[in-house]
Amino acid sequence: MQQKIAIGIDVGGTNIRMARVDETGAIRGILKQPTNARREMTEIVADIALGIKKLIGGHEGLPAHVSGIGLGMPGFLSLQTGVIHSSPNLPTARETPAASFLQELTGLPVFLENDANAAAIGEHWVGAGQGVRNLLCVTLGTGVGSGFILNHAIWHGSNDLAGELGHTVLVPDGLPCKCGRKGCLEAYVSATGIVARTESALGEGKDSSLGVFHRPGNSLTAQAVYEHAKEGDRLARDIFAETGRYLGIALANVLNMLDLEMILVGGRVAQAGDLLLRPAIDEVSKTALRAAYHPIPILQARLGDHAGVIGAAKTVFDRLDTGF
Amino acid sequence: MQQKIAIGIDVGGTNIRMARVDETGAIRGILKQPTNARREMTEIVADIALGIKKLIGGHEGLPAHVSGIGLGMPGFLSLQTGVIHSSPNLPTARETPAASFLQELTGLPVFLENDANAAAIGEHWVGAGQGVRNLLCVTLGTGVGSGFILNHAIWHGSNDLAGELGHTVLVPDGLPCKCGRKGCLEAYVSATGIVARTESALGEGKDSSLGVFHRPGNSLTAQAVYEHAKEGDRLARDIFAETGRYLGIALANVLNMLDLEMILVGGRVAQAGDLLLRPAIDEVSKTALRAAYHPIPILQARLGDHAGVIGAAKTVFDRLDTGF
Repeated sequence: MQQKIAIGIDVGGTNIRMARVDETGAIRGILKQPTNARREMTEIVADIALGIKKLIGGHEGLPAHVSGIGLGMPGFLSLQTGVIHSSPNLPTARETPAASFLQELTGLPVFLENDANAAAIGEHWVGAGQGVRNLLCVTLGTGVGSGFILNHAIWHGSNDLAGELGHTVLVPDGLPCKCGRKGCLEAYVSATGIVARTESALGEGKDSSLGVFHRPGNSLTAQAVYEHAKEGDRLARDIFAETGRYLGIALANVLNMLDLEMILVGGRVAQAGDLLLRPAIDEVSKTALRAAYHPIPILQARLGDHAGVIGAAKTVFDRLDTGF
Repeated sequence: MQQKIAIGIDVGGTNIRMARVDETGAIRGILKQPTNARREMTEIVADIALGIKKLIGGHEGLPAHVSGIGLGMPGFLSLQTGVIHSSPNLPTARETPAASFLQELTGLPVFLENDANAAAIGEHWVGAGQGVRNLLCVTLGTGVGSGFILNHAIWHGSNDLAGELGHTVLVPDGLPCKCGRKGCLEAYVSATGIVARTESALGEGKDSSLGVFHRPGNSLTAQAVYEHAKEGDRLARDIFAETGRYLGIALANVLNMLDLEMILVGGRVAQAGDLLLRPAIDEVSKTALRAAYHPIPILQARLGDHAGVIGAAKTVFDRLDTGF
């Protein structure tokens, strides 16, 4: 018998990733196409349907062994109805029934999931968190996503809005966040936050090899800060140390509330590795009550850009099983 | 057939409450005795055993219809082994097998539970949180306790250390907390925190009817701050408004992570009612993402001083059922 396949989709603000994933979590084909996020959601979803057809063979009609589609999307959504209420990264999404759009176009069952939750599900399934009962997976990119695995299952909360660690307040009345509030974790530890804090330090005249970026026309990136930190630039290193410490405070807060046994950190920013994770681990060992009694592994996520599509596919297998 | 009874015990730093509780959550007898927390734990537990005998009739041998004892204790503990690792409020507790001590003295099965978790269990069982799937119950007293009900059950975490919202960092590098760290929520919104912040404002020469307390020999209490706030004192009102706002930031953070459908606030400080809860609700409505889509009732807990004993008794019925 042919093995079952699910299509996992990870819709980002810039790119859409799609993959055929089998029941062991192995990717059997992958595709990336631009999101062009300013388009109407109907166009974006139609493009996803075209991509799916390409992915599973190009011909009309879908093979019978495809179980369904897991649609990972950024934003606030409702799982049961498959509706996206709104999404900072998909500006035209507004109470959009994305799952039923895609279901009509493909004839396959579609299960909506939050993108950061999908990444957590993927890492728990076949990534760095396999077999762990309770974990948090944080994705540090342009923004900060997160998903909680509690008792081996993703925690959706009462109305599918759980997992927004990025929009917890780290510093009351602190730096402005793109969500409109102040002091959110995302405003400090996302790539955007790292750039903003570095620019502010450069603006204060701090000496740094990054000074070259503090001119009109040069646009600073978190990647550049990381590279200068690797080269030993003091300011760049301080920025990463501070970023790690802020992350550590937020992680320790989560641990003190929920007593999880593992934290995974993924996303582009996490590629900074020890420059970021070492100060985070130091902070957690000082602030997390659990640290006195139990180890708290804080590890890099393992699936990279594939965590989202793999996790989205997993929700298909899980939810077909439970009928949800 | 006689209804089953469980003994619920709530060990505080000052008093120990014990109650006979039936399977409907009704209290059938209650007793309070001083903790004298500086004594050895063996003495404290022996005193509890004496109290239990008084509570169930004074005679030797325990009636057969008493199912067991739920022992609610402050501090860090291990449920399965019944051991208290340590407790800020019970200074002699140090890897103390409190449950087996009490089991030996009474001949009844004893189930250890964290005191703040017991209060949450009580409120969920027969208090303000009945029938609610996901809630947080915060107890504001000398310290800040909290318990999470997730999917209708108390959340213990991976190693029974969950629920320490009081020791999440609200303000990085903020006010010193008695736990030795800085900026914990407890340092701001506990009775102790309210007093410390008021004294600091009085020390800065702020005009207030509380000025009378800013003299050697007069010791300020949170109760006094509350009474002066009720009488309209500006500083006292500001202190409560700020306390409520801090509480609201912490609650919104919890909501953004876990998407709960109700928050209960109990303990002495919560008796300030609207003076405290109104600014907390305002802050949550501004900061919690859930607020855009769903109501978030933030309510006073209903069982008062009895929440802990009722919840401790409930753990007996639950854990005898599940064999845990």
